[in-house]
Amino acid sequence: GEASGPSVKTTVPGPKSRQMIADLDKIQFAGSVFYFTDYKNSLGNYVVDADGNSILDVFSQISSLPLGYNHPDMHKVVQDPDNQIAFINRPALGIFPAQGWPEKLTNSLLSVAPKGHTQVNTMACGSCSNENAFKAAFMWYRNKQRGGASISDEENSSCLVNRAPGSTPFTIMSFKGSFHGQTLGCLTTTHSRSIFKLDFPALDWPIASFPRYKYPLEDHVKENEAEDRRCLAEVEEQFEIYNKAGKFVAGVVVEPIQAEGGDVHASPEFFQQLQRITKKNGAALILDEVQTGGGATGKYWCHEHFNLPDPADFVTFSKKMLTGGFYSLPEFRPQQGLKIFNTWMGDPSKVLLLEKVVQVVKRDNLLKLVELSGKKLMDGLKDLSNRFPQHMKNNVRGIGTFCAFDLTSPQKRDEAFFRLQQHGVQSGPCGEQTIRLRPFLVFQPKHADIFLDVLEKVLKEI
Amino acid sequence: GEASGPSVKTTVPGPKSRQMIADLDKIQFAGSVFYFTDYKNSLGNYVVDADGNSILDVFSQISSLPLGYNHPDMHKVVQDPDNQIAFINRPALGIFPAQGWPEKLTNSLLSVAPKGHTQVNTMACGSCSNENAFKAAFMWYRNKQRGGASISDEENSSCLVNRAPGSTPFTIMSFKGSFHGQTLGCLTTTHSRSIFKLDFPALDWPIASFPRYKYPLEDHVKENEAEDRRCLAEVEEQFEIYNKAGKFVAGVVVEPIQAEGGDVHASPEFFQQLQRITKKNGAALILDEVQTGGGATGKYWCHEHFNLPDPADFVTFSKKMLTGGFYSLPEFRPQQGLKIFNTWMGDPSKVLLLEKVVQVVKRDNLLKLVELSGKKLMDGLKDLSNRFPQHMKNNVRGIGTFCAFDLTSPQKRDEAFFRLQQHGVQSGPCGEQTIRLRPFLVFQPKHADIFLDVLEKVLKEI
Ligand code: FES
Repeated sequence: GEASGPSVKTTVPGPKSRQMIADLDKIQFAGSVFYFTDYKNSLGNYVVDADGNSILDVFSQISSLPLGYNHPDMHKVVQDPDNQIAFINRPALGIFPAQGWPEKLTNSLLSVAPKGHTQVNTMACGSCSNENAFKAAFMWYRNKQRGGASISDEENSSCLVNRAPGSTPFTIMSFKGSFHGQTLGCLTTTHSRSIFKLDFPALDWPIASFPRYKYPLEDHVKENEAEDRRCLAEVEEQFEIYNKAGKFVAGVVVEPIQAEGGDVHASPEFFQQLQRITKKNGAALILDEVQTGGGATGKYWCHEHFNLPDPADFVTFSKKMLTGGFYSLPEFRPQQGLKIFNTWMGDPSKVLLLEKVVQVVKRDNLLKLVELSGKKLMDGLKDLSNRFPQHMKNNVRGIGTFCAFDLTSPQKRDEAFFRLQQHGVQSGPCGEQTIRLRPFLVFQPKHADIFLDVLEKVLKEI
Repeated sequence: GEASGPSVKTTVPGPKSRQMIADLDKIQFAGSVFYFTDYKNSLGNYVVDADGNSILDVFSQISSLPLGYNHPDMHKVVQDPDNQIAFINRPALGIFPAQGWPEKLTNSLLSVAPKGHTQVNTMACGSCSNENAFKAAFMWYRNKQRGGASISDEENSSCLVNRAPGSTPFTIMSFKGSFHGQTLGCLTTTHSRSIFKLDFPALDWPIASFPRYKYPLEDHVKENEAEDRRCLAEVEEQFEIYNKAGKFVAGVVVEPIQAEGGDVHASPEFFQQLQRITKKNGAALILDEVQTGGGATGKYWCHEHFNLPDPADFVTFSKKMLTGGFYSLPEFRPQQGLKIFNTWMGDPSKVLLLEKVVQVVKRDNLLKLVELSGKKLMDGLKDLSNRFPQHMKNNVRGIGTFCAFDLTSPQKRDEAFFRLQQHGVQSGPCGEQTIRLRPFLVFQPKHADIFLDVLEKVLKEI
């Protein structure tokens, strides 16, 4: 069974991990590795590292593994000989899908689709999901511009050499502090940290401010409403500037919670207004739920907490959904083949795993568990922030188990993160001085207690 | 055992596939689907479609499945309980690799590395492989420019909003007719067909001509040498123009054979000179072996046929290698973490499959088989092109089984492609009037005979 608590015998990383990091470093730059992992002996919420340390994992492989390590139902999926067919015969899915594929999509991605969504395309990671949502928005925008006119020879020939009119001057608006991936199109819309962007070319696309609230929220209602208005005015302004310059804004991409950028939350009202402004300007709203989607907020999609007046035009996903892809409203459906396309178009074996995840989430009532464990986490974090104001800022925030808190300085964050690791808790740093929690969907209130105990110990030490 | 020949009972696609296409079309645009596939009953070189047609597959899932359907050794990989761990616990590989990972890389990707290569990074598809090779080239180029100076605050802050000096004006040179993927960076270097590019923004990056030879080669030696010189002069010219304009060319990306663009071949001399010119201009040469790599040319890497004076700076791969990624020389190694990065950084379960593929290729001497079957294919195609000059152009070309031929018009190509399918052969269209053959590595001379018989029948019909 699952470990009853963390058990750490060496420094983390220990000597074995350090040797393996040195081995890997002969083959590739290995500077981002925390430690090597013994996946065979990892179970549930506990990851075991190469030195035999058993670590409570509240980071879940950058929020990408939904049910914890070696979940018995996941084992069943890969043990089933019929499923093994899909693991070893990866198709060019856009051309030769397996019989039964529409049913698989219906049982998995469509069974948890955001309200109002019936259309879904699979991709292989968060970056190609966003890149292709951008492309679908560009096609839609251009078709509106054409107004039914047919495509000219000049368009076809000019685009081959990256020139107008075939290549468009279209843009995607993004927000300061955002993270949408690290391929060149996605990277143009990413602004969370310079390390991701430095030295690379970027397109001239509009950028607006994302709200930065004062906490506690209930004491700063007026200021935070003003902050929403300031950011929304910037959105309007960027539309105005770029559209007037002929760099038409075809879409606005936004995370429901800016996760990589430090778990920055904005109000439902902000998102409601953003949808209104985007629609008014004839652009598509692209909700990037790559990190927020998949259940950690207590709903499958974080934006379902926002009561948007209309369904989002696009919702992109990856990570906990195991497959990348995007939902989009029917009006954004490509009208031609090969444009939203690549060799593999995702991976059916990941959708088989997702199908089972969705069943388990339902069967075991895991979204309810997320709510319970999330409440426990949030209460505990708020209590600690009150008791250790010298270390923790008063801005604990979260929905479900998708929680975060700030230390009072970047140095203190690094120290808290390190000490948590040494005491057997794997958390995730993000933003400048934030620690984010991204537990598995099987994280229980008892795991919250263990985490909070260790965090308290750490706060006493530093 | 494997089928002894194609067996087609319905039109292709048949009624069952057509119904499934209609079902899928309710969920997503399904216009690019050829037919639905019964992967359980597909075996070796034969794919079985949903209507029970058994089709000789010489397209191999757009050249991506190496050993044919349901290879017994692939089944063994996924049946092994130790391996199943990797299929269900996908890590954030850049942070928490599994113990034993360096050995896995050594046994798989490094065991077949292009000559002179000891460094490899994994990615998940051809697009992120190319995008990240571009990024590594940009970092390398910028570091050379900096000449050891440290990174300024202005660089760090400006790149966050996509501005100089942190965001660079750097470019990647590519060739007319090329295909390097469909994310925005890759797409800027793709020029094979307008359908891929129309309506999307593109960066202003240099483009040179790729040689277009007269066939038969032996009768046009002088013209084709002149064609090489013309294209290489364009490369020099583009370096000059872009470097002078401050849009420094950090890399040149090129396919050893322009596959999507119509299987356009260039001479070893062309590639040797291209390497020389690229080096002279201080840029990196990026060989995109996503389609040509993995053994179909009789060597693991097509460019090994070119006798380049030096190892290529970058070699990118995906498809038949099952995992994406790139080899690069040590000088292009990133010096910082998180820049050549994403959540999954590939997928260890694909590397387990690749490890076995590499063993099987060696054990069963499959590269030798590719050579034999390729010779049979090429001889047969040349014979048919001589006998049916009214349908086939005199430009049969190929290395190993990586073969192609042109019909005398786009319409005829479409008809030949369709009739091949109806007679139970799945080939691949590419370029304007080309049919490409991308058989599995287990394609034998007897399969070549069957293919050639069917093609002859088709040429007699049209
Ligand atoms: S860009 Fe998504 S898998 Fe390669």
